[in-house]
Amino acid sequence: MAKEKKMVEAITSMDVDFAQWYTDVVKKAELIDYTSVKGCMVIKPAGYAIWENIQKELDARFKATGVENVYLPMFIPESLLQVEKDHVEGFAPEVAWVTHGGLEPLQERLCVRPTSETLFCELYAKDIRSHRDLPRLYNQWCSVVRWEKTTRPFLRSREFLWQEGHTAHATAEEAEERTIQMLNVYADFLEEVLAIPVVKGRKTDKEKFAGAEATYTIEALMHDGKALQAGTSHNFGDGFAKAFGIQYADKDNKLQYVHQTSWGMTTRLIGAIIMVHGDDNGLKLPPRIAPVQAVIVPIMQKKEGVLEKAYELEADLKAAGIRVKTDATDKSPGFKFAEQEMRGIPVRIECGPKDIEKGQAIVVRRDTREKTIVCFENLATEVANILDIMQTEMLETARAHREAHTTVARTWDEFVTALDANPGFIKGMWCGEKECEVAIKEETGATTRCMPFEQECLSETCVHCGKPAKKMLYFGRAY
Amino acid sequence: MAKEKKMVEAITSMDVDFAQWYTDVVKKAELIDYTSVKGCMVIKPAGYAIWENIQKELDARFKATGVENVYLPMFIPESLLQVEKDHVEGFAPEVAWVTHGGLEPLQERLCVRPTSETLFCELYAKDIRSHRDLPRLYNQWCSVVRWEKTTRPFLRSREFLWQEGHTAHATAEEAEERTIQMLNVYADFLEEVLAIPVVKGRKTDKEKFAGAEATYTIEALMHDGKALQAGTSHNFGDGFAKAFGIQYADKDNKLQYVHQTSWGMTTRLIGAIIMVHGDDNGLKLPPRIAPVQAVIVPIMQKKEGVLEKAYELEADLKAAGIRVKTDATDKSPGFKFAEQEMRGIPVRIECGPKDIEKGQAIVVRRDTREKTIVCFENLATEVANILDIMQTEMLETARAHREAHTTVARTWDEFVTALDANPGFIKGMWCGEKECEVAIKEETGATTRCMPFEQECLSETCVHCGKPAKKMLYFGRAY
Repeated sequence: MAKEKKMVEAITSMDVDFAQWYTDVVKKAELIDYTSVKGCMVIKPAGYAIWENIQKELDARFKATGVENVYLPMFIPESLLQVEKDHVEGFAPEVAWVTHGGLEPLQERLCVRPTSETLFCELYAKDIRSHRDLPRLYNQWCSVVRWEKTTRPFLRSREFLWQEGHTAHATAEEAEERTIQMLNVYADFLEEVLAIPVVKGRKTDKEKFAGAEATYTIEALMHDGKALQAGTSHNFGDGFAKAFGIQYADKDNKLQYVHQTSWGMTTRLIGAIIMVHGDDNGLKLPPRIAPVQAVIVPIMQKKEGVLEKAYELEADLKAAGIRVKTDATDKSPGFKFAEQEMRGIPVRIECGPKDIEKGQAIVVRRDTREKTIVCFENLATEVANILDIMQTEMLETARAHREAHTTVARTWDEFVTALDANPGFIKGMWCGEKECEVAIKEETGATTRCMPFEQECLSETCVHCGKPAKKMLYFGRAY
Repeated sequence: MAKEKKMVEAITSMDVDFAQWYTDVVKKAELIDYTSVKGCMVIKPAGYAIWENIQKELDARFKATGVENVYLPMFIPESLLQVEKDHVEGFAPEVAWVTHGGLEPLQERLCVRPTSETLFCELYAKDIRSHRDLPRLYNQWCSVVRWEKTTRPFLRSREFLWQEGHTAHATAEEAEERTIQMLNVYADFLEEVLAIPVVKGRKTDKEKFAGAEATYTIEALMHDGKALQAGTSHNFGDGFAKAFGIQYADKDNKLQYVHQTSWGMTTRLIGAIIMVHGDDNGLKLPPRIAPVQAVIVPIMQKKEGVLEKAYELEADLKAAGIRVKTDATDKSPGFKFAEQEMRGIPVRIECGPKDIEKGQAIVVRRDTREKTIVCFENLATEVANILDIMQTEMLETARAHREAHTTVARTWDEFVTALDANPGFIKGMWCGEKECEVAIKEETGATTRCMPFEQECLSETCVHCGKPAKKMLYFGRAY
């Protein structure tokens, strides 16, 4: 037997150092690799396959609402970026600039898109003439660049993959409706597919997107109690339309400005999956998003009939629509188990000579490590069943964790105590003043995550300043 | 009834001005739009949907051969681009340079990838240790930038979409095998899905990829008799491996250099579809690649029951797996017909009150304009059948066109005469000297397309210089 590398190397425990645990997992689960381009990463096959599944699922949900895909240039001329004032102020400090094409300096420098509102506006200004041209429901899958100072794989990198939807509507009502509709598409996707529960709400003015009238967000809670903004949906009103001159003739042939939205989700979702579900053995993928849902590990695979049986079971499971592989490499079973746990494969199926004699296999869940003995003829049905149960229970577990780490703070004392005693979301009342938001952030590092759609009246006064409260907010320290 | 825009505007006839015809079609079929970034385009929904189908089909074929998808950064540090000498010489003159990140100048400038050999090499140098790590079969779907001076939609633009496969193998034989395998995947895809016949062959040393040992190509002939390189597959030997230090320990624990390949296809394929199949009424999409395969046009759609019937038929066809839409807009039927022809929809289905009385619809083929009356109960089967026949016949038509525009030239006179008398491929013998290739190009504008795998001996002497012939070549003026 060939020499074996040592068993999957131990990773840092998440309770000891969550940040190091995260870095260990993304490396050891072979999701990413670093490159000589600082702040940019290679997304390796195991990572990219997750992104492909995210794309497939989200894209189908977008298209079901009438969205069409397009592709716009990756470059934005400096003058075009500057058309909308708030927008350029928000993005100009963090874009990469192309100054030379080939051997010659450019007449006007181009930024690599940090987001494509300006390009979509330029297109819509040319393309939209009449109310018959509306709504325009475009989306693109691409990469964008933001020159961040500190970066972390998936969570914050100088280049990342995302989708950006950009729509134009005849009325303010339709634009608002689409903004909320896409937020709901995002929230449902996270809960149903990624098994991540989210809080839906609106960003405060301080936290909204550069150039937006309103930004809506879904906020998720990571295992370490930090919040993660998992997706945003913006209503631009007619601000961009006025800046770019996007007008249509209405039914009475009068010129009107369109109302626009944009909404985006990124590869940071992979970071969310890791930080919501992972444990000290590595990644834990919800079955619906897992590129490989089950791996068959033949035990004593050199014995006659063992590998044959494994491939036979693999074919059965495949026929039942399960994404399954057989690991027939010459590593030891123990090594394979550890490796698959690190990679987050939802289910492992062990089957050796003794099992074959008895006509059964052992099915082991990644999340609970629960073992079930299943006879061959029921294997496909039972594995499908276990995957369904896992999907549901992983969402329940994540929801329970979030509930346990959500504190109601009615006083500033309660607020400050909760931050360290029970890191997570803090629900608190707010006076509505930006100064108070800024002060809270400066004093505690906690930011306002959102004004949730489900408002409660926890008290009559702002948790920080004691003035009359206007809104309930979710607060948290965030990625 | 609302005012109607004038009928689909006439386009330039392809016989009058093929270049203008091409530009008219890409605009009027709404495949692309221009932007304020010179040489970059917007790929609009009708164009992007074709690309999505190309991706889906090709990606499945890649994965069936064991290929995995990854994503590498869009930036390459200047020093990394320079590691392989021939490669940097080939690409440096046409790359875009990022010199500033945010408000600060970069310490080292970065080019926007024109292709990613250097980044894959950097990854492989870190990742590959042992013969067990081989082969590595990676691919990525992304955009690349080449700062071209003259650009044309899809055919040559400063940014374009593509896939680039990069593989690493233990032996030279395996690398060569993979190079040819992927060329065959490309050729089969073009013939089976895009209905475009291709010549498979090897590029001369003059025409090969910068840094490659051998470049293989598939060459297609456009309607105007010009050649288009539709896809290439490169064998790098161990040149890049030596430049980047990509070594593995073989079974005897000796260090060996890997052997590499790369292969790519781009959005230029959409240009090929247009120029092989299109006519003076616009685009003509082969059914297997058409995003919409059939459109139902209700006639006198305001009459009771007409629209209902149209949607009923739509549901039947959808259930049979046909990509079908109903055009229920308030445009006239004539306008709809012209618009769908312009967009290249393979089949149109007309159905009005009289047809409904008779229980039938009229099916019209885009390519031949042939009309068939089909009773409702057979409609789905018959449309599927017609789409299959169209797919086959469009390939046959394209093949016949290519055969009719391929000339055997045994003398230089025959060569020069054929160029104008029958623009297309010219088959001719070649002495093997680069000087002769250069001279032919300078004198005629024709380039060597490839040394086809199917060699023939047309004569004993080079068609240009009369020296002893070594190879048969395909020549042609090219896009």
